[in-house]
Amino acid sequence: MPKLYIGNKNYSSWSMRPWVLLKQAGIPFEEVRVRFDSFEADSEFKRVIGPVSPTGKVPVLVDGDLVVWDTLAIAEYVAETWADKQLWPQDAKARARARSVCAEMHSGFTALRSNCPMNIEADLADTGALIWRDKPGVRADVQRLVDMWSALLQEHGGPLLFGQFSVADAYFAPVCMRLHTYALPVPAHITAYVNRVRALPGVQDWIAEALGEKDFLAFEEPYRLRHTED
Amino acid sequence: MPKLYIGNKNYSSWSMRPWVLLKQAGIPFEEVRVRFDSFEADSEFKRVIGPVSPTGKVPVLVDGDLVVWDTLAIAEYVAETWADKQLWPQDAKARARARSVCAEMHSGFTALRSNCPMNIEADLADTGALIWRDKPGVRADVQRLVDMWSALLQEHGGPLLFGQFSVADAYFAPVCMRLHTYALPVPAHITAYVNRVRALPGVQDWIAEALGEKDFLAFEEPYRLRHTED
Repeated sequence: MPKLYIGNKNYSSWSMRPWVLLKQAGIPFEEVRVRFDSFEADSEFKRVIGPVSPTGKVPVLVDGDLVVWDTLAIAEYVAETWADKQLWPQDAKARARARSVCAEMHSGFTALRSNCPMNIEADLADTGALIWRDKPGVRADVQRLVDMWSALLQEHGGPLLFGQFSVADAYFAPVCMRLHTYALPVPAHITAYVNRVRALPGVQDWIAEALGEKDFLAFEEPYRLRHTED
Repeated sequence: MPKLYIGNKNYSSWSMRPWVLLKQAGIPFEEVRVRFDSFEADSEFKRVIGPVSPTGKVPVLVDGDLVVWDTLAIAEYVAETWADKQLWPQDAKARARARSVCAEMHSGFTALRSNCPMNIEADLADTGALIWRDKPGVRADVQRLVDMWSALLQEHGGPLLFGQFSVADAYFAPVCMRLHTYALPVPAHITAYVNRVRALPGVQDWIAEALGEKDFLAFEEPYRLRHTED
Protein backbone atom coordinates (compact mmCIF):
# COMPACT_ATOMS: atom_id res chain seq x y z
CA MET A 1 0.00 0.00 0.00
CA PRO A 2 1.47 3.42 -0.90
CA LYS A 3 2.43 5.78 1.89
CA LEU A 4 1.61 9.46 1.54
CA TYR A 5 3.59 11.84 3.71
CA ILE A 6 1.71 15.04 4.41
CA GLY A 7 1.88 18.11 6.66
CA ASN A 8 -0.76 19.73 8.86
CA LYS A 9 -4.19 19.30 7.30
CA ASN A 10 -5.32 22.77 8.29
CA TYR A 11 -2.46 24.49 6.52
CA SER A 12 -0.78 22.25 3.95
CA SER A 13 -2.42 23.04 0.64
CA TRP A 14 0.11 20.98 -1.30
CA SER A 15 -0.52 17.93 0.89
CA MET A 16 -4.26 18.26 0.40
CA ARG A 17 -4.11 17.70 -3.37
CA PRO A 18 -2.79 14.12 -3.58
CA TRP A 19 -4.57 13.11 -0.34
CA VAL A 20 -7.94 14.19 -1.74
CA LEU A 21 -7.10 12.58 -5.07
CA LEU A 22 -6.36 9.20 -3.47
CA LYS A 23 -9.23 9.39 -0.99
CA GLN A 24 -11.86 10.51 -3.46
CA ALA A 25 -10.71 7.84 -5.93
CA GLY A 26 -11.03 5.17 -3.25
CA ILE A 27 -7.37 4.13 -3.51
CA PRO A 28 -6.12 2.63 -0.23
CA PHE A 29 -3.05 4.38 1.18
CA GLU A 30 -1.29 4.87 4.45
CA GLU A 31 -1.11 8.43 5.68
CA VAL A 32 2.01 9.63 7.47
CA ARG A 33 1.37 13.04 8.93
CA VAL A 34 4.50 15.03 9.73
CA ARG A 35 3.66 18.01 11.89
CA PHE A 36 4.97 21.40 10.77
CA ASP A 37 7.03 22.48 13.76
CA SER A 38 9.20 24.68 11.57
CA PHE A 39 11.01 24.42 8.26
CA GLU A 40 14.47 25.09 9.69
CA ALA A 41 17.21 22.53 9.10
CA ASP A 42 17.13 21.44 12.76
CA SER A 43 13.34 21.05 12.92
CA GLU A 44 11.63 17.78 13.74
CA PHE A 45 9.81 18.14 10.42
CA LYS A 46 13.07 18.18 8.45
CA ARG A 47 14.52 15.43 10.61
CA VAL A 48 11.62 13.14 9.66
CA ILE A 49 11.08 14.14 6.04
CA GLY A 50 14.75 14.62 5.11
CA PRO A 51 15.57 10.90 4.79
CA VAL A 52 12.35 10.30 2.82
CA SER A 53 12.13 13.18 0.36
CA PRO A 54 15.00 14.50 -1.76
CA THR A 55 13.47 17.99 -1.58
CA GLY A 56 12.77 17.88 2.16
CA LYS A 57 9.16 18.82 1.50
CA VAL A 58 5.71 17.28 1.65
CA PRO A 59 3.84 15.73 0.01
CA VAL A 60 5.83 12.64 -0.91
CA LEU A 61 4.40 9.34 -2.06
CA VAL A 62 6.38 6.20 -1.26
CA ASP A 63 5.30 3.06 -3.09
CA GLY A 64 7.62 0.18 -2.29
CA ASP A 65 11.11 1.39 -3.18
CA LEU A 66 9.81 4.20 -5.37
CA VAL A 67 9.73 7.77 -4.06
CA VAL A 68 7.58 10.24 -5.98
CA TRP A 69 7.69 13.86 -4.93
CA ASP A 70 5.95 17.00 -6.01
CA THR A 71 2.17 16.98 -6.37
CA LEU A 72 1.97 16.94 -10.16
CA ALA A 73 4.28 13.95 -10.44
CA ILE A 74 2.30 12.18 -7.72
CA ALA A 75 -0.93 12.91 -9.58
CA GLU A 76 0.50 11.52 -12.83
CA TYR A 77 1.79 8.43 -11.05
CA VAL A 78 -1.53 7.79 -9.33
CA ALA A 79 -3.52 8.35 -12.53
CA GLU A 80 -1.23 6.01 -14.46
CA THR A 81 -0.98 3.28 -11.81
CA TRP A 82 -4.71 3.19 -11.07
CA ALA A 83 -5.76 3.83 -14.67
CA ASP A 84 -9.18 2.25 -14.05
CA LYS A 85 -10.06 5.22 -11.83
CA GLN A 86 -9.92 7.51 -14.86
CA LEU A 87 -8.46 10.40 -12.90
CA TRP A 88 -7.54 12.33 -16.02
CA PRO A 89 -10.29 12.95 -18.60
CA GLN A 90 -10.45 10.12 -21.14
CA ASP A 91 -10.64 12.46 -24.12
CA ALA A 92 -7.13 13.47 -25.24
CA LYS A 93 -8.01 17.14 -25.73
CA ALA A 94 -9.80 17.43 -22.41
CA ARG A 95 -6.83 15.67 -20.80
CA ALA A 96 -4.42 18.21 -22.31
CA ARG A 97 -6.56 21.04 -20.95
CA ALA A 98 -6.77 19.41 -17.53
CA ARG A 99 -3.00 19.15 -17.45
CA SER A 100 -2.72 22.78 -18.57
CA VAL A 101 -4.85 24.10 -15.72
CA CYS A 102 -3.04 21.91 -13.17
CA ALA A 103 0.37 23.04 -14.40
CA GLU A 104 -0.83 26.64 -14.30
CA MET A 105 -1.89 26.14 -10.68
CA HIS A 106 1.43 24.44 -9.94
CA SER A 107 3.52 27.47 -10.85
CA GLY A 108 1.06 30.33 -10.75
CA PHE A 109 -1.56 32.16 -8.69
CA THR A 110 1.24 33.49 -6.51
CA ALA A 111 -0.67 36.55 -5.26
CA LEU A 112 -3.57 34.42 -4.07
CA ARG A 113 -1.26 31.83 -2.55
CA SER A 114 0.93 34.31 -0.68
CA ASN A 115 -1.83 36.64 0.51
CA CYS A 116 -4.43 34.00 1.35
CA PRO A 117 -2.62 30.99 2.80
CA MET A 118 -4.86 28.00 3.35
CA ASN A 119 -6.36 27.96 6.83
CA ILE A 120 -9.39 25.72 6.85
CA GLU A 121 -10.54 26.27 10.39
CA ALA A 122 -10.33 30.07 10.28
CA ASP A 123 -13.02 32.57 9.33
CA LEU A 124 -11.09 35.38 7.70
CA ALA A 125 -13.88 37.17 5.86
CA ASP A 126 -12.87 40.63 7.10
CA THR A 127 -9.23 40.00 6.24
CA GLY A 128 -10.40 38.79 2.85
CA ALA A 129 -12.34 42.02 2.30
CA LEU A 130 -9.20 44.08 3.01
CA ILE A 131 -7.12 41.88 0.73
CA TRP A 132 -9.75 42.17 -1.98
CA ARG A 133 -9.75 45.97 -1.64
CA ASP A 134 -5.97 46.40 -1.55
CA LYS A 135 -4.39 43.62 -3.60
CA PRO A 136 -4.96 43.86 -7.35
CA GLY A 137 -2.86 40.71 -7.84
CA VAL A 138 -5.34 38.70 -5.78
CA ARG A 139 -8.25 40.14 -7.74
CA ALA A 140 -6.48 39.21 -10.99
CA ASP A 141 -5.79 35.66 -9.79
CA VAL A 142 -9.43 35.20 -8.76
CA GLN A 143 -10.62 36.62 -12.07
CA ARG A 144 -8.47 34.10 -13.88
CA LEU A 145 -9.97 31.29 -11.79
CA VAL A 146 -13.48 32.53 -12.52
CA ASP A 147 -12.76 32.67 -16.25
CA MET A 148 -11.11 29.23 -16.27
CA TRP A 149 -13.73 27.46 -14.18
CA SER A 150 -16.65 29.13 -15.96
CA ALA A 151 -15.35 27.98 -19.34
CA LEU A 152 -14.70 24.42 -18.16
CA LEU A 153 -18.00 24.05 -16.30
CA GLN A 154 -19.87 25.30 -19.33
CA GLU A 155 -17.94 23.17 -21.80
CA HIS A 156 -18.18 19.93 -19.84
CA GLY A 157 -21.58 20.58 -18.29
CA GLY A 158 -20.37 20.12 -14.68
CA PRO A 159 -20.82 19.18 -11.95
CA LEU A 160 -17.00 19.26 -11.73
CA LEU A 161 -14.44 20.95 -13.97
CA PHE A 162 -14.19 18.12 -16.49
CA GLY A 163 -17.57 16.55 -15.78
CA GLN A 164 -16.77 13.79 -13.32
CA PHE A 165 -14.09 14.09 -10.62
CA SER A 166 -10.57 14.47 -12.01
CA VAL A 167 -7.09 15.49 -10.91
CA ALA A 168 -8.07 19.08 -11.72
CA ASP A 169 -10.69 19.21 -8.95
CA ALA A 170 -8.21 17.79 -6.43
CA TYR A 171 -5.72 20.35 -7.65
CA PHE A 172 -8.06 23.27 -7.10
CA ALA A 173 -9.56 21.97 -3.83
CA PRO A 174 -7.19 24.09 -1.69
CA VAL A 175 -8.18 27.14 -3.75
CA CYS A 176 -11.80 26.37 -2.95
CA MET A 177 -10.83 26.34 0.72
CA ARG A 178 -9.21 29.77 0.37
CA LEU A 179 -12.15 31.32 -1.46
CA HIS A 180 -14.36 30.09 1.40
CA THR A 181 -12.10 31.08 4.33
CA TYR A 182 -11.44 34.57 2.98
CA ALA A 183 -14.98 34.93 1.55
CA LEU A 184 -13.60 36.33 -1.68
CA PRO A 185 -16.39 37.59 -3.94
CA VAL A 186 -17.10 35.32 -6.90
CA PRO A 187 -20.19 34.78 -9.05
CA ALA A 188 -22.88 32.41 -7.77
CA HIS A 189 -22.06 29.61 -10.21
CA ILE A 190 -18.46 29.66 -8.95
CA THR A 191 -19.58 29.53 -5.32
CA ALA A 192 -21.77 26.59 -6.33
CA TYR A 193 -18.71 24.79 -7.75
CA VAL A 194 -16.70 25.58 -4.60
CA ASN A 195 -19.51 24.07 -2.54
CA ARG A 196 -19.65 20.96 -4.72
CA VAL A 197 -15.91 20.46 -4.20
CA ARG A 198 -16.31 21.03 -0.45
CA ALA A 199 -19.06 18.41 -0.42
CA LEU A 200 -16.99 15.66 -2.06
CA PRO A 201 -16.52 12.87 0.50
CA GLY A 202 -12.74 12.96 0.10
CA VAL A 203 -12.72 16.71 0.75
CA GLN A 204 -15.18 16.40 3.64
CA ASP A 205 -12.83 13.91 5.30
CA TRP A 206 -9.87 16.25 4.92
CA ILE A 207 -11.84 19.23 6.29
CA ALA A 208 -13.08 17.23 9.30
CA GLU A 209 -9.54 16.18 10.16
CA ALA A 210 -8.22 19.72 9.62
CA LEU A 211 -10.85 21.05 12.04
CA GLY A 212 -9.86 18.40 14.55
CA GLU A 213 -6.19 19.36 14.58
CA LYS A 214 -6.43 22.57 16.64
CA ASP A 215 -2.69 23.04 16.18
CA PHE A 216 -2.07 26.79 15.94
CA LEU A 217 1.17 27.50 14.05
CA ALA A 218 2.16 31.16 14.23
CA PHE A 219 4.33 30.99 11.09
CA GLU A 220 1.28 29.87 9.11
CA GLU A 221 -0.94 32.56 10.65
CA PRO A 222 -0.24 36.02 9.25
CA TYR A 223 -3.70 37.20 10.32
CA ARG A 224 -4.40 35.66 13.74
CA LEU A 225 -2.76 35.67 17.17
CA ARG A 226 -4.54 32.59 18.39
CA HIS A 227 -7.01 29.87 17.56
CA THR A 228 -10.54 31.26 17.42
CA GLU A 229 -12.76 29.67 20.06
CA ASP A 230 -15.75 27.77 18.73
CA MET B 1 1.37 20.77 -37.78
CA PRO B 2 1.38 22.13 -34.22
CA LYS B 3 2.27 25.77 -33.66
CA LEU B 4 4.52 26.66 -30.75
CA TYR B 5 4.39 30.27 -29.56
CA ILE B 6 7.61 31.32 -27.86
CA GLY B 7 9.36 34.47 -26.65
CA ASN B 8 12.90 35.74 -27.22
CA LYS B 9 15.27 32.81 -27.56
CA ASN B 10 18.03 34.55 -25.62
CA TYR B 11 15.87 35.12 -22.56
CA SER B 12 12.80 32.89 -22.50
CA SER B 13 13.76 29.85 -20.45
CA TRP B 14 10.19 28.55 -20.38
CA SER B 15 9.93 28.75 -24.17
CA MET B 16 13.18 26.86 -24.55
CA ARG B 17 11.88 23.70 -22.89
CA PRO B 18 9.13 22.61 -25.30
CA TRP B 19 11.00 23.98 -28.32
CA VAL B 20 14.05 21.83 -27.53
CA LEU B 21 11.79 18.89 -26.75
CA LEU B 22 10.07 19.07 -30.14
CA LYS B 23 13.23 19.86 -32.07
CA GLN B 24 15.39 17.20 -30.47
CA ALA B 25 12.62 14.63 -30.92
CA GLY B 26 12.37 15.52 -34.61
CA ILE B 27 8.69 16.47 -34.40
CA PRO B 28 7.77 19.01 -37.10
CA PHE B 29 6.23 22.20 -35.74
CA GLU B 30 5.72 25.79 -36.73
CA GLU B 31 7.43 28.33 -34.52
CA VAL B 32 5.71 31.62 -33.79
CA ARG B 33 8.13 33.92 -32.05
CA VAL B 34 6.50 36.77 -30.14
CA ARG B 35 9.06 39.36 -29.18
CA PHE B 36 9.14 40.45 -25.54
CA ASP B 37 8.58 44.21 -25.85
CA SER B 38 7.13 44.34 -22.34
CA PHE B 39 4.62 42.39 -20.27
CA GLU B 40 2.29 45.34 -19.68
CA ALA B 41 -1.34 45.00 -20.72
CA ASP B 42 -0.85 47.41 -23.63
CA SER B 43 2.31 45.73 -24.98
CA GLU B 44 2.54 44.25 -28.44
CA PHE B 45 3.45 40.95 -26.75
CA LYS B 46 0.17 40.85 -24.83
CA ARG B 47 -1.78 42.04 -27.87
CA VAL B 48 -0.50 39.06 -29.87
CA ILE B 49 -0.48 36.37 -27.19
CA GLY B 50 -3.67 37.43 -25.38
CA PRO B 51 -6.07 35.99 -27.97
CA VAL B 52 -4.04 32.76 -28.16
CA SER B 53 -3.20 31.91 -24.54
CA PRO B 54 -5.63 32.04 -21.62
CA THR B 55 -2.74 32.97 -19.32
CA GLY B 56 -1.26 35.60 -21.63
CA LYS B 57 2.12 33.88 -21.45
CA VAL B 58 4.45 31.83 -23.58
CA PRO B 59 4.98 29.04 -24.36
CA VAL B 60 1.68 27.91 -25.83
CA LEU B 61 1.19 24.99 -28.16
CA VAL B 62 -1.70 25.18 -30.61
CA ASP B 63 -2.60 21.93 -32.35
CA GLY B 64 -5.69 22.38 -34.52
CA ASP B 65 -8.39 23.73 -32.21
CA LEU B 66 -6.57 22.59 -29.08
CA VAL B 67 -4.60 25.08 -26.99
CA VAL B 68 -2.14 23.64 -24.49
CA TRP B 69 -0.39 26.02 -22.18
CA ASP B 70 2.24 25.71 -19.51
CA THR B 71 5.41 23.76 -20.26
CA LEU B 72 4.64 20.65 -18.23
CA ALA B 73 1.26 20.19 -19.87
CA ILE B 74 2.86 20.75 -23.29
CA ALA B 75 5.50 18.15 -22.47
CA GLU B 76 2.86 15.61 -21.42
CA TYR B 77 0.82 16.31 -24.54
CA VAL B 78 3.84 15.94 -26.83
CA ALA B 79 5.01 12.76 -25.10
CA GLU B 80 1.53 11.26 -25.33
CA THR B 81 0.77 12.33 -28.90
CA TRP B 82 4.13 11.25 -30.31
CA ALA B 83 4.43 8.19 -28.07
CA ASP B 84 6.84 6.51 -30.51
CA LYS B 85 9.45 9.14 -29.60
CA GLN B 86 9.60 7.73 -26.05
CA LEU B 87 10.08 11.15 -24.50
CA TRP B 88 9.38 9.87 -21.00
CA PRO B 89 11.39 6.89 -19.75
CA GLN B 90 9.65 3.62 -20.62
CA ASP B 91 10.11 2.12 -17.17
CA ALA B 92 7.25 3.21 -14.88
CA LYS B 93 9.49 3.97 -11.92
CA ALA B 94 11.99 5.95 -13.95
CA ARG B 95 9.05 7.79 -15.51
CA ALA B 96 7.70 8.71 -12.06
CA ARG B 97 11.13 10.04 -11.09
CA ALA B 98 11.45 11.98 -14.33
CA ARG B 99 8.10 13.59 -13.65
CA SER B 100 9.18 14.34 -10.09
CA VAL B 101 12.30 16.23 -11.14
CA CYS B 102 10.40 18.13 -13.85
CA ALA B 103 7.63 19.11 -11.43
CA GLU B 104 10.29 20.18 -8.91
CA MET B 105 11.86 22.39 -11.58
CA HIS B 106 8.44 23.73 -12.51
CA SER B 107 7.74 25.18 -9.07
CA GLY B 108 11.16 25.36 -7.47
CA PHE B 109 14.73 26.63 -7.83
CA THR B 110 13.43 30.15 -7.28
CA ALA B 111 16.73 31.59 -6.01
CA LEU B 112 18.60 30.37 -9.08
CA ARG B 113 15.83 31.50 -11.42
CA SER B 114 15.50 34.99 -9.95
CA ASN B 115 19.21 35.70 -9.43
CA CYS B 116 20.49 34.12 -12.62
CA PRO B 117 17.97 34.82 -15.37
CA MET B 118 18.72 33.01 -18.60
CA ASN B 119 20.85 35.11 -20.94
CA ILE B 120 22.48 32.85 -23.46
CA GLU B 121 24.58 35.41 -25.29
CA ALA B 122 26.06 36.99 -22.16
CA ASP B 123 29.23 36.11 -20.32
CA LEU B 124 28.41 36.82 -16.70
CA ALA B 125 31.16 34.89 -14.95
CA ASP B 126 32.11 37.77 -12.64
CA THR B 127 28.48 38.41 -11.77
CA GLY B 128 28.13 34.70 -11.12
CA ALA B 129 31.08 34.77 -8.73
CA LEU B 130 29.45 37.56 -6.72
CA ILE B 131 26.12 35.74 -6.69
CA TRP B 132 27.87 32.57 -5.58
CA ARG B 133 29.60 34.42 -2.76
CA ASP B 134 26.56 36.33 -1.53
CA LYS B 135 23.46 34.23 -2.22
CA PRO B 136 23.14 31.10 -0.10
CA GLY B 137 19.83 30.32 -1.80
CA VAL B 138 21.59 30.02 -5.16
CA ARG B 139 24.26 27.77 -3.65
CA ALA B 140 21.52 25.59 -2.14
CA ASP B 141 19.67 25.37 -5.47
CA VAL B 142 22.84 24.39 -7.31
CA GLN B 143 23.69 21.82 -4.63
CA ARG B 144 20.26 20.28 -5.10
CA LEU B 145 20.86 20.12 -8.87
CA VAL B 146 24.25 18.51 -8.35
CA ASP B 147 22.76 15.90 -5.99
CA MET B 148 19.83 15.19 -8.30
CA TRP B 149 21.84 14.96 -11.51
CA SER B 150 24.65 12.96 -9.93
CA ALA B 151 22.19 10.35 -8.65
CA LEU B 152 20.35 10.09 -11.97
CA LEU B 153 23.50 9.96 -14.11
CA GLN B 154 24.91 7.26 -11.88
CA GLU B 155 21.71 5.25 -11.74
CA HIS B 156 20.97 5.36 -15.47
CA GLY B 157 24.57 5.38 -16.64
CA GLY B 158 24.23 8.55 -18.73
CA PRO B 159 24.85 10.15 -21.10
CA LEU B 160 21.64 12.04 -20.21
CA LEU B 161 19.62 12.09 -16.99
CA PHE B 162 17.55 9.01 -17.78
CA GLY B 163 19.95 7.43 -20.25
CA GLN B 164 18.64 8.59 -23.61
CA PHE B 165 17.14 12.04 -24.21
CA SER B 166 13.91 12.63 -22.26
CA VAL B 167 11.63 15.46 -21.20
CA ALA B 168 13.86 15.89 -18.14
CA ASP B 169 16.86 17.00 -20.22
CA ALA B 170 14.71 19.49 -22.12
CA TYR B 171 13.38 20.70 -18.80
CA PHE B 172 16.83 21.32 -17.37
CA ALA B 173 18.35 22.72 -20.57
CA PRO B 174 17.77 26.35 -19.48
CA VAL B 175 19.45 25.55 -16.16
CA CYS B 176 22.45 24.27 -18.12
CA MET B 177 22.49 27.61 -19.95
CA ARG B 178 22.51 29.47 -16.62
CA LEU B 179 25.29 27.39 -15.12
CA HIS B 180 27.34 28.16 -18.21
CA THR B 181 26.56 31.90 -18.49
CA TYR B 182 27.21 32.57 -14.81
CA ALA B 183 30.06 30.04 -14.60
CA LEU B 184 28.70 28.66 -11.35
CA PRO B 185 31.13 26.16 -9.80
CA VAL B 186 30.00 22.55 -10.13
CA PRO B 187 31.90 19.25 -10.15
CA ALA B 188 33.49 18.11 -13.41
CA HIS B 189 30.93 15.36 -14.07
CA ILE B 190 28.16 17.96 -13.84
CA THR B 191 29.98 20.30 -16.24
CA ALA B 192 30.30 17.31 -18.55
CA TYR B 193 26.53 16.77 -18.42
CA VAL B 194 25.93 20.48 -19.06
CA ASN B 195 28.20 20.25 -22.09
CA ARG B 196 26.41 17.16 -23.38
CA VAL B 197 23.10 19.01 -23.15
CA ARG B 198 24.61 22.06 -24.87
CA ALA B 199 25.83 19.78 -27.65
CA LEU B 200 22.42 18.23 -28.40
CA PRO B 201 21.43 19.29 -31.93
CA GLY B 202 18.09 20.69 -30.69
CA VAL B 203 19.90 22.77 -28.08
CA GLN B 204 22.59 23.86 -30.55
CA ASP B 205 19.87 25.17 -32.85
CA TRP B 206 18.25 27.14 -30.04
CA ILE B 207 21.60 28.62 -28.94
CA ALA B 208 22.53 29.63 -32.49
CA GLU B 209 19.22 31.42 -32.93
CA ALA B 210 19.51 33.06 -29.51
CA LEU B 211 22.96 34.40 -30.43
CA GLY B 212 21.55 35.70 -33.69
CA GLU B 213 18.80 37.75 -32.04
CA LYS B 214 20.92 40.60 -30.68
CA ASP B 215 17.81 42.10 -29.13
CA PHE B 216 18.86 43.74 -25.87
CA LEU B 217 15.92 43.97 -23.45
CA ALA B 218 16.72 46.09 -20.40
CA PHE B 219 13.99 44.48 -18.26
CA GLU B 220 15.64 41.08 -18.79
CA GLU B 221 19.12 42.45 -18.08
CA PRO B 222 19.71 43.10 -14.36
CA TYR B 223 23.48 42.93 -14.88
CA ARG B 224 24.22 44.69 -18.17
CA LEU B 225 23.68 48.13 -19.66
CA ARG B 226 24.15 47.03 -23.22
CA HIS B 227 24.90 44.16 -25.53
CA THR B 228 28.51 43.08 -25.20
CA GLU B 229 30.37 43.52 -28.49
CA ASP B 230 31.80 40.35 -29.98
